[in-house]
Amino acid sequence: MSDRPPSVADGLACPVPLSSPATVQRGHGGGGRMTKDLVERVFLAGADAAALRALHDGAVLDVPAGRLAISTDAFVVTPLFFPGGDIGSLAVHGTVNDLAMCGARPVALSAAFVLEEGFPIDDLARVAASMRAAAAAVGVPVVTGDTKVVDRGRGDGVYVVTTGVGVVREGARVDPRRAAPGDRVLVSGDLGVHGVVVLSVREGLRFETDLVSDSAPLHDLVAGVLDAAGDRVHVLRDPTRGGLASALVEIAESAGVAVALDERALPVPEPVRGACEILGLDPLAVANEGKCVAVVAPGAADAALAAMRAHPLGRRAAIVGEVVAGPAGRVTVGGRAGGARLLEMPRGEQLPRIC
Amino acid sequence: MSDRPPSVADGLACPVPLSSPATVQRGHGGGGRMTKDLVERVFLAGADAAALRALHDGAVLDVPAGRLAISTDAFVVTPLFFPGGDIGSLAVHGTVNDLAMCGARPVALSAAFVLEEGFPIDDLARVAASMRAAAAAVGVPVVTGDTKVVDRGRGDGVYVVTTGVGVVREGARVDPRRAAPGDRVLVSGDLGVHGVVVLSVREGLRFETDLVSDSAPLHDLVAGVLDAAGDRVHVLRDPTRGGLASALVEIAESAGVAVALDERALPVPEPVRGACEILGLDPLAVANEGKCVAVVAPGAADAALAAMRAHPLGRRAAIVGEVVAGPAGRVTVGGRAGGARLLEMPRGEQLPRIC
Repeated sequence: MSDRPPSVADGLACPVPLSSPATVQRGHGGGGRMTKDLVERVFLAGADAAALRALHDGAVLDVPAGRLAISTDAFVVTPLFFPGGDIGSLAVHGTVNDLAMCGARPVALSAAFVLEEGFPIDDLARVAASMRAAAAAVGVPVVTGDTKVVDRGRGDGVYVVTTGVGVVREGARVDPRRAAPGDRVLVSGDLGVHGVVVLSVREGLRFETDLVSDSAPLHDLVAGVLDAAGDRVHVLRDPTRGGLASALVEIAESAGVAVALDERALPVPEPVRGACEILGLDPLAVANEGKCVAVVAPGAADAALAAMRAHPLGRRAAIVGEVVAGPAGRVTVGGRAGGARLLEMPRGEQLPRIC
Repeated sequence: MSDRPPSVADGLACPVPLSSPATVQRGHGGGGRMTKDLVERVFLAGADAAALRALHDGAVLDVPAGRLAISTDAFVVTPLFFPGGDIGSLAVHGTVNDLAMCGARPVALSAAFVLEEGFPIDDLARVAASMRAAAAAVGVPVVTGDTKVVDRGRGDGVYVVTTGVGVVREGARVDPRRAAPGDRVLVSGDLGVHGVVVLSVREGLRFETDLVSDSAPLHDLVAGVLDAAGDRVHVLRDPTRGGLASALVEIAESAGVAVALDERALPVPEPVRGACEILGLDPLAVANEGKCVAVVAPGAADAALAAMRAHPLGRRAAIVGEVVAGPAGRVTVGGRAGGARLLEMPRGEQLPRIC
C-alpha cells in the first residue's frame, strides 16, 4: 500500500538516491511527491517546462474564434521501440495526423501515461524525449498530462493516450460525406510500411531492405494540399489500423458511394509486398502511420497531387482510383488482368497492437 | 493474429450472433468492422450518436475566441464499479472538475479506452452508459474517442482516459501562484470519502454507515463561487489523489507561501475518520472526487462560502484555514490542544488505483 522501496536490483542498475528509483514504482502514480518528481525529472526535462510548472491539472491557451478540432488516440503498440520510431513519437504523429485529417492546424497536445510498476525509468525517459522531439518538430506543445501506475504484470510497460486540439483552416471543408462520383482518390505514398515493420520486429523476421516505420507528421503536407485545392479537397483520412481498405470502405459508406481503385497505381513497395505474401496479409489492410488518403474533386486532383509530391513526405504520392456511383461502401481493385476484386473492411485485425 | 472466434462460453452467456460476441475480442481493437460494430453498439447507444457518426478520428466544434482550458486524466481505478459510481462516471467527473478548477466551462470531452481481451461487453456497456449519463448531466458531449484492445491478462478490464476542453470564464483568474498571505482556504465539503469507499470495497471492509463515493461534477458549484467572488478567487483545486494534503502543499509551493489549517474546521465525516484510524491512513491525504479547495481573498471568503453552501454539493462547505507568510510549501494543522502538526505531501500513495 505504501511506497515499495527501490529494490537492490534497482540500486545496482543505476546508482541513484532512494528518491529516484530506476524503475516505475506504485508511488509514482499516487499524486504525491514521487509523482511530482517523476513528472519533473522525466516529462518536464524539455522546453515546455516553464508553462507546465505554472499549471496543475489543466492548461490554458489562447485561441481565435472558429472551428476547433479535437482528436484522441490510445497507443498500445508492442514492441514500444521499433525501427523508425517508438510509442512516444507514434503517439504525437498519430494525433497530429488525426487533426490534419480534419483540416486543422494542431495547437496543443495532452498526454496521459498508464505505466506498469517496474518499467525502467530510462525507457520512460526515452519515450518522453521522443514525444518532446516529435512535438517540437511539429511546433505543437504538450501542454498537460497525467500519469497513473498499474500493478506489475498489468499494462505493458507503458500505454500512451494523446489528445490534440487544432484550429480548422479557414475554407477547409473536409467531411467523409462529401466524397462524390467522379472524385479522384490520392494516396501520399508507399502503403503498408508501419504494420510490416512492427510485425517484423515482433516476429523476428528480417527483410533484405532496411524498412523503417513511416510514422511521420502530415500537418505540413496536408496544409500544402489545402493551399492547392482548398474546399475541393472533399475527404482526408490517414489509413492507420485496417489500412487503406478500412479507410476507403468507411468513407464510401459514409458518402453512400463506391470506389474503384487501380491496382497498378497503388504504391506498395516490394519489401512490403514480399512480407505480406509470406505472412498471408493484404498490404491494403496493413496500417500506415505517415500516409494520407485524399478524395479530391476531379478538377483539383492534379494540383493536389503536385502539392503532395512537392513535400518530402509525399514524393511517391499517386492518384490511385476514383469515386463511382454504386452500392454504398463497395470498394474494388481493378487488377492487371482487367478483373476486379472486392476490398473489404477487415472484420477484426490482421495485426494486433500495431499502434 | 486473426479474430479469435467467440468461445462456447460466450455463446452460453448470451445468445448473440457471431458478429456480436459477449466479450471483448482482439479484433475489437483492429479498426475494422468489429471496432465499428463495438463503437456503434456500445459507445454510440446514446444521444451523441448523430454527431459522432458523421465524423471519424476527430471532431469539430465551434468555439468563441478566448482562453481555452485543456485537461487530461487517466483512470485505472479498481474495482471498476464501486458504491456511488464507476470508472465511467468517475472519468467524466474527474475531467469536468479539472476544467472547472481552471475556471472553465466544459464544452467537449474525448474518451479513449484500453480494453482487455475477454472483458464482458455488458460491463463495457454499463461503463459507457454511465459515462453518457454523467456527461449528459453536465451538458457536455463526448465528441470523439478511441478504442484499443490488449491481450488477456494485460490491462484490468478497462482503462479510460478522458480529455476535456473548456472555455475559461470571462474575468476568472485562477492560478496557484496567486495564493497570498491573508487568503482564506475553503473546502466544499466532507473530506476523504472516495478513497475510503474504494478501499473498503477492495478490502471487503464494512462500515456502519452506507458511505458512497463523493464522485460528482463541480462545474456548477464553481460557477457559483466565481459569480460570487470573481477574480478574488485566487486558486481552485480538486483534492483527488494525495488528498487535501497534496493539493495544499503544491499550491503553497507554487505561490511561495505557507498554509495554516484549523483541525476543528476540517469536515471529516465520522465513518471516514474511523476507517482511517483502523487503516492507519491520514484522511487529509485520502482522495476526494467531488470536492474542491478554493483559496480566496479575505474580503470574498464569506461570499464564496455562501455560494458553495447554496449548492447541493456544497452544503457542508467550510473555511478551514488561511494562507500565511512562511516557508514555501509549509502546511500545518492546528489541533484541538493548540499545537500544530506539519502536513506533508505524501511521498508515494496510501491508496493505489484509487482513480
